Amino acid sequence: MTVVSNTVDRLHTLLDDEKYDEINPLLADCHPAEIAHILESLPIKQRRIVWSSTALEQGDILSHLNDAVRTELMQTMHPTEVAAATEEMEADDAADLLQDLPGQVIEEVLLAMDEQHRWRLAQVLFYPEDTAGGLMNTDTLTIRADVTLDVVLRYLRLHAELPERTDTLMVVDRDNYYQGVLLITDLLTHDPELEVQQLLLSKIEPIPAHLSTHEVARLFEQRDLVSAPVIDEEGLLLGRITVDDVVDVIRAEADHTIMSSAGLDEEDDMFAPALTTTRHRAIWLGINLLTAFLAAWVIGLFEATLEQIVALAVLMPVVASMGGIAGSQTLTVVIRGMALGKVTDSNTPWLLRRELFVSIINGVLWALVVAGIAILWFGDIQLGIVIGCAIVVNLLFAAFSGTLIPLLLKRLSIDPALAGGVILTTVTDVVGFAAFLGLATLFLL
Amino acid sequence: MTVVSNTVDRLHTLLDDEKYDEINPLLADCHPAEIAHILESLPIKQRRIVWSSTALEQGDILSHLNDAVRTELMQTMHPTEVAAATEEMEADDAADLLQDLPGQVIEEVLLAMDEQHRWRLAQVLFYPEDTAGGLMNTDTLTIRADVTLDVVLRYLRLHAELPERTDTLMVVDRDNYYQGVLLITDLLTHDPELEVQQLLLSKIEPIPAHLSTHEVARLFEQRDLVSAPVIDEEGLLLGRITVDDVVDVIRAEADHTIMSSAGLDEEDDMFAPALTTTRHRAIWLGINLLTAFLAAWVIGLFEATLEQIVALAVLMPVVASMGGIAGSQTLTVVIRGMALGKVTDSNTPWLLRRELFVSIINGVLWALVVAGIAILWFGDIQLGIVIGCAIVVNLLFAAFSGTLIPLLLKRLSIDPALAGGVILTTVTDVVGFAAFLGLATLFLL
Repeated sequence: MTVVSNTVDRLHTLLDDEKYDEINPLLADCHPAEIAHILESLPIKQRRIVWSSTALEQGDILSHLNDAVRTELMQTMHPTEVAAATEEMEADDAADLLQDLPGQVIEEVLLAMDEQHRWRLAQVLFYPEDTAGGLMNTDTLTIRADVTLDVVLRYLRLHAELPERTDTLMVVDRDNYYQGVLLITDLLTHDPELEVQQLLLSKIEPIPAHLSTHEVARLFEQRDLVSAPVIDEEGLLLGRITVDDVVDVIRAEADHTIMSSAGLDEEDDMFAPALTTTRHRAIWLGINLLTAFLAAWVIGLFEATLEQIVALAVLMPVVASMGGIAGSQTLTVVIRGMALGKVTDSNTPWLLRRELFVSIINGVLWALVVAGIAILWFGDIQLGIVIGCAIVVNLLFAAFSGTLIPLLLKRLSIDPALAGGVILTTVTDVVGFAAFLGLATLFLL
Repeated sequence: MTVVSNTVDRLHTLLDDEKYDEINPLLADCHPAEIAHILESLPIKQRRIVWSSTALEQGDILSHLNDAVRTELMQTMHPTEVAAATEEMEADDAADLLQDLPGQVIEEVLLAMDEQHRWRLAQVLFYPEDTAGGLMNTDTLTIRADVTLDVVLRYLRLHAELPERTDTLMVVDRDNYYQGVLLITDLLTHDPELEVQQLLLSKIEPIPAHLSTHEVARLFEQRDLVSAPVIDEEGLLLGRITVDDVVDVIRAEADHTIMSSAGLDEEDDMFAPALTTTRHRAIWLGINLLTAFLAAWVIGLFEATLEQIVALAVLMPVVASMGGIAGSQTLTVVIRGMALGKVTDSNTPWLLRRELFVSIINGVLWALVVAGIAILWFGDIQLGIVIGCAIVVNLLFAAFSGTLIPLLLKRLSIDPALAGGVILTTVTDVVGFAAFLGLATLFLL
């Protein structure tokens, strides 16, 4: 946002001029989410200075920060400060924040809380972060089905404040078993003498607490929900999930796919110090170095051929690169289809056939182009035929691997977004070099 | 979702056995969004059969389909059928759907509508699809600031039905200028004798109709909104944006980044016929072929050197590949930072310095490893030194390009997610081959 980037630029000026006492007035009008965003956009040294100038609303700001930045800033806080900061937060945000702390510190923070707050948090902490239970809030208003709307209206008026994003009231029986929801809007537009059960929407399926956040997000997207009830295995109402947390899940999933294709962690601090960044990236370079040397080893097998026809060395990256590009197109389509739940057992054969067909047509098309260029460049028709055939072979392998690698990885519970690209490139490099240099050895020597 | 994939699998069985009359009963219990999802998961032939069996709720299903699939299915519909299907849809969904049709068909469809419906749509169609105006709905309930809550409550009870996801009522003056919002929950929990203006939240900033959907999404994410008012340049209330449409924007933006990095369109039909897919992918392969031949041309400049030292041909892909990987890490971080609005003029220099520092450290580290392996493999210390230096040079260029290419592309209004990767790979290939073979020509011959 322009407003935020202006503020960031002005902050930088203040920081450069060491006018630290002007920082707080500058941020006073900002929303906590904007301050979080500004903190994430600053290198560590400046970030700490700004953080120490924003004594107010620290809890709100923390709940909007990404994991890496939050953990870093919380290291400077005392457990009682952390406990105080979580007091005003929604239970799921507070749980999310606590889960980043070392086990011992979590205990200290929990002990520093009052009992009600601790109990509210414990329910959410019980469920893993990536399930409906870890995403829910426990601030749910419940009503009974056998009362009239008028009773509900009077009850709400006594209740002073409703939780944020309340679009429904949860209807439970006397044992707290979930029965359905009453829309707030129905409450407003219907005759107060009606009973809740006459307007009860029991069609709204409750979300089981163990459902993955991925499935929760798909449900919210498909049904256009604002909030949904969460129940345990017995059917007891535990809490509710609101759309703002689902938006964060969707954003995080998308970021994960984008970042992990480059071996990066979406929760990393973009402005982490150089040494931290170096360490995180080194591993990925190492893994890719292994695959690069595997490709080099394949080329090495044909040293004798390369010594005789140097044109092969000039053209071989073209074969590998075409395979890599075609394969990554297939891979991207399949990984996204899997994430959206569109790839099923019954349509995989169709998809594989389609990808193979596409690769044959595109393979033959571009093989002719490449062969033509090679013949014109090196005046060698046989070389042209060899490179053309190698490209067709490599594109076929690319389509095959691009479709099957992600499905196989998923079956092995390995993240296709992280490992798919590396494995695919290894295949297209190795097959590309082997096919081109192998065919050349057979037919050109 | 497991439910959906089960249904898809059963559908395939029905389709294979040509039991077409059992399709409708199978889908009867499905939500329109799920039917849309199922249609998107089917190849065209089966899709048309299933579509023709779901005569009911076609409008709802259409609004949940992606652009490519929707356009394809609408080709089979008559303008009056399309007009009827849009009748029940929210204005923004209907506008979205119409914008995919050819200009002449849009007119026919508009003419087939009743006047009120047409007028409601015209307001949304006036604004581009990627602005707040194109995303808004016009079904807004407005009230005046000088009435009591009791009047509002009685007014709502008369009004029978509130628009979906109504969490606020818009407060306007007699000329329809936006003044603020009244939370539905405040309406429920406060004394009915209070006047609206005593509870008016004027802090909720209205969204200007020309704001980009990207900015709208960031605003919803940061402020955890369920709905927000949209105004024109004069401050007149036009409508409101609801979070379900924002969720679609966030999903579409993420899909765009993921898909365009492989030269794909996020709105394409995953199960498009092979020939359509072939055509879409061919262009991207052609563009990448150009860059591959550029790299080959650079190698060709050093043919004489390669003829004398064949080990160079074996090792040269390692240099190019390390540069490509390191560069794509930087590129991914910067593109994501730009999308999240975290890269500003004031922190770009810091970011560039950090990336260069990271590339020097990682460059030297992996240069030593590669040099060691090269020396062991080919028994040539000088070759080791040359490849080590080439890797350091290439990683420096990779960091430089990875940071600056997306910033430059954005300034030229070219989508960095689409073009960034191709340009980066061209740089790291060309620099990698040139540095390695160039240094070898200077020092090894």
